[in-house]
Amino acid sequence: MPQINPNLARTTPPPVMEARRWLDGVTFPQNRPLINVSQAAPVEPPPPALRQVMADTALSDDGAHLYGPVLGLPALRAEVAGRTAKLYRGTVRADQVAITSGCNQAFCAAMATLAAPGDEVLLPVPWYFNHKMWLDMTGVAAVPLPTNAELLPDVAEAEARITTRTRAIVLVTPNNPGGVEYPANLVAAFRNLAKTHGLALILDETYRDFDSRPAPAHDLFAQPDWDDTLIHLYSFSKAYRLTGHRVGALLASPARLAEVEKFLDTVAICPNQIAQHAALWGMRNLDQWLAGERAEILDRRAAIEEGFARLPGWRLRGAGAYFAYVEHPFDTSSDALCKRMVAEIGVLALPGTMFMPEGDASGARQIRIAFANIDRDAIAALFARLRALA
Amino acid sequence: MPQINPNLARTTPPPVMEARRWLDGVTFPQNRPLINVSQAAPVEPPPPALRQVMADTALSDDGAHLYGPVLGLPALRAEVAGRTAKLYRGTVRADQVAITSGCNQAFCAAMATLAAPGDEVLLPVPWYFNHKMWLDMTGVAAVPLPTNAELLPDVAEAEARITTRTRAIVLVTPNNPGGVEYPANLVAAFRNLAKTHGLALILDETYRDFDSRPAPAHDLFAQPDWDDTLIHLYSFSKAYRLTGHRVGALLASPARLAEVEKFLDTVAICPNQIAQHAALWGMRNLDQWLAGERAEILDRRAAIEEGFARLPGWRLRGAGAYFAYVEHPFDTSSDALCKRMVAEIGVLALPGTMFMPEGDASGARQIRIAFANIDRDAIAALFARLRALA
Repeated sequence: MPQINPNLARTTPPPVMEARRWLDGVTFPQNRPLINVSQAAPVEPPPPALRQVMADTALSDDGAHLYGPVLGLPALRAEVAGRTAKLYRGTVRADQVAITSGCNQAFCAAMATLAAPGDEVLLPVPWYFNHKMWLDMTGVAAVPLPTNAELLPDVAEAEARITTRTRAIVLVTPNNPGGVEYPANLVAAFRNLAKTHGLALILDETYRDFDSRPAPAHDLFAQPDWDDTLIHLYSFSKAYRLTGHRVGALLASPARLAEVEKFLDTVAICPNQIAQHAALWGMRNLDQWLAGERAEILDRRAAIEEGFARLPGWRLRGAGAYFAYVEHPFDTSSDALCKRMVAEIGVLALPGTMFMPEGDASGARQIRIAFANIDRDAIAALFARLRALA
Repeated sequence: MPQINPNLARTTPPPVMEARRWLDGVTFPQNRPLINVSQAAPVEPPPPALRQVMADTALSDDGAHLYGPVLGLPALRAEVAGRTAKLYRGTVRADQVAITSGCNQAFCAAMATLAAPGDEVLLPVPWYFNHKMWLDMTGVAAVPLPTNAELLPDVAEAEARITTRTRAIVLVTPNNPGGVEYPANLVAAFRNLAKTHGLALILDETYRDFDSRPAPAHDLFAQPDWDDTLIHLYSFSKAYRLTGHRVGALLASPARLAEVEKFLDTVAICPNQIAQHAALWGMRNLDQWLAGERAEILDRRAAIEEGFARLPGWRLRGAGAYFAYVEHPFDTSSDALCKRMVAEIGVLALPGTMFMPEGDASGARQIRIAFANIDRDAIAALFARLRALA
């Protein structure tokens, strides 16, 4: 049989699919159903009005069934530009926006324009596993960047790791898996570092709509030449519950987007058209609804913070966006513990080992809990079950 | 500014987008509207019943709005397996099928499992440009395989080009851009060649539903161990007019699909869910309708064959699927001629140079005409215009 590309062979399997397999053959009693805090995704469908928009588009918009422009619908590109400019008090044009088939694809496209095999990219640890997987499968080295007690990376630590092969620094804020919201001045410092060294700063703000802070999360878009360094990633999946439809965005210079267009044409041809119409309608009509979603998630986060403060031995390292990132008190690796949690307490969460280099000992103590899907009652049940864990 | 990955920088821009730009600033008189034969895509939306299925799914199926399995909906995987087994009189299981976000993505995923930077892949010339682009951007060498007067590649010619770095042979049948339907025994001979040398045979049958032959196009699925060599690609875009929805399929061994899953999880997470429901319903309900589509396209092909037989100086090299591949009689490169055709006769087609290595002189004489979108009247108008070309 033909061999497997060694770059792909050494990539880890998708953690979420892997974790889903832990459920195979396990039955959950009716009075103790599974609490699934493994995947960062809404579990409810979009609001009815948005579903109606999708249905109407399918029935009435002939063009929505045909190929669209590779970089996305012009109206959606313009809407994203306007929204981004307003939100961050900066200047963004439609020709600096590409629509992608989800934010994972936006990352792949950005990285394809930056890094060739043998190049290096700095990723704070713990990292988002799909970022690491893409680097692995394209032969690009993920250089782990340590984070401090607050799960924040340090500019000097990053600078010390820059080599002639370094092409980009990747920051995810609010962070997946850590939950932490990066301070605006830290983001700016990383932009300055990247700019000084001729690197790209990739800023993944998939969870920005659930940031607890009132002010803009950073001032990068307020710099007139932001697109010489910044590549910004966004997802419509969380804000508008469009995970099953695959639509995200990538903001960069027009010159870089010409390269992104080559990648997206080859990997996707165009983003799903109904999804783009849904995202556009959502941005134009769901601000109030989204504000309510954010308030609900911030309330759940408060419940998570209260719960861990009272749970003996456990330590909450970060909480924000969809995530709590915690240290458990057991003398067991988090891999084994997460599997045990499925069987013993009916909780599915992902071990820290899935978010860091193999052999990094800290992962064995850490667990990511994607709490956004479960309400206060389920959060209370989660803590009762964690308390029962032997 | 950060540099552009040289592998991506040297990739050509998307030809269809490039050609679309030739239309900028050109106005077409009302009595001579543009005849666009540049893109291989239906220009009509899907049949009303299928649009209704999409609308109903959006309104009634909560799960269709959430992430689905990375490798696609189990029911669709099973349907593709059953259909493939029946069509080719072979044996195919659901665990040998992955659903992808379009057939371009299926190719990328297949190739990601096979070839690392520095490896080589054989592509018959003229080739499908997105195949070449993916190889370019991943640092894999596309080794051009010449074709004969009938646009068919030769097994001995292929064997002579196999090196220790060769990982796969790619065949597209019915061919894009050539239109030619590869004889079953040629496909089998290539499978044998690939198997002997431990290579994969990637068989892209995007246009199989418009093949003019009554019998199975090949017997590869009838071999019980087909999945040790064959990787089969299919698209729902053409058969069910789902181009704007992005849904395709990849058939291979379960072991290879475990690697495909890593790639798809990272690049797409899952295929669009409404698109998958539409493809499933189409496969189950649109056989009669599709037979009518095929008959119509075969009739248009006949009109193309008749037309070129009577057009002085032009030579039809291949006709089938959506395509006529022709040689023009002018002392001009096809690039320049195709641009002139936009301005002088209101026809947009792609030059042969877009389908072959830079510097291959034959491309300058060749043009691809994607005729499937235009009816007999428009085909007659096309020939009248070509006759008027000075």
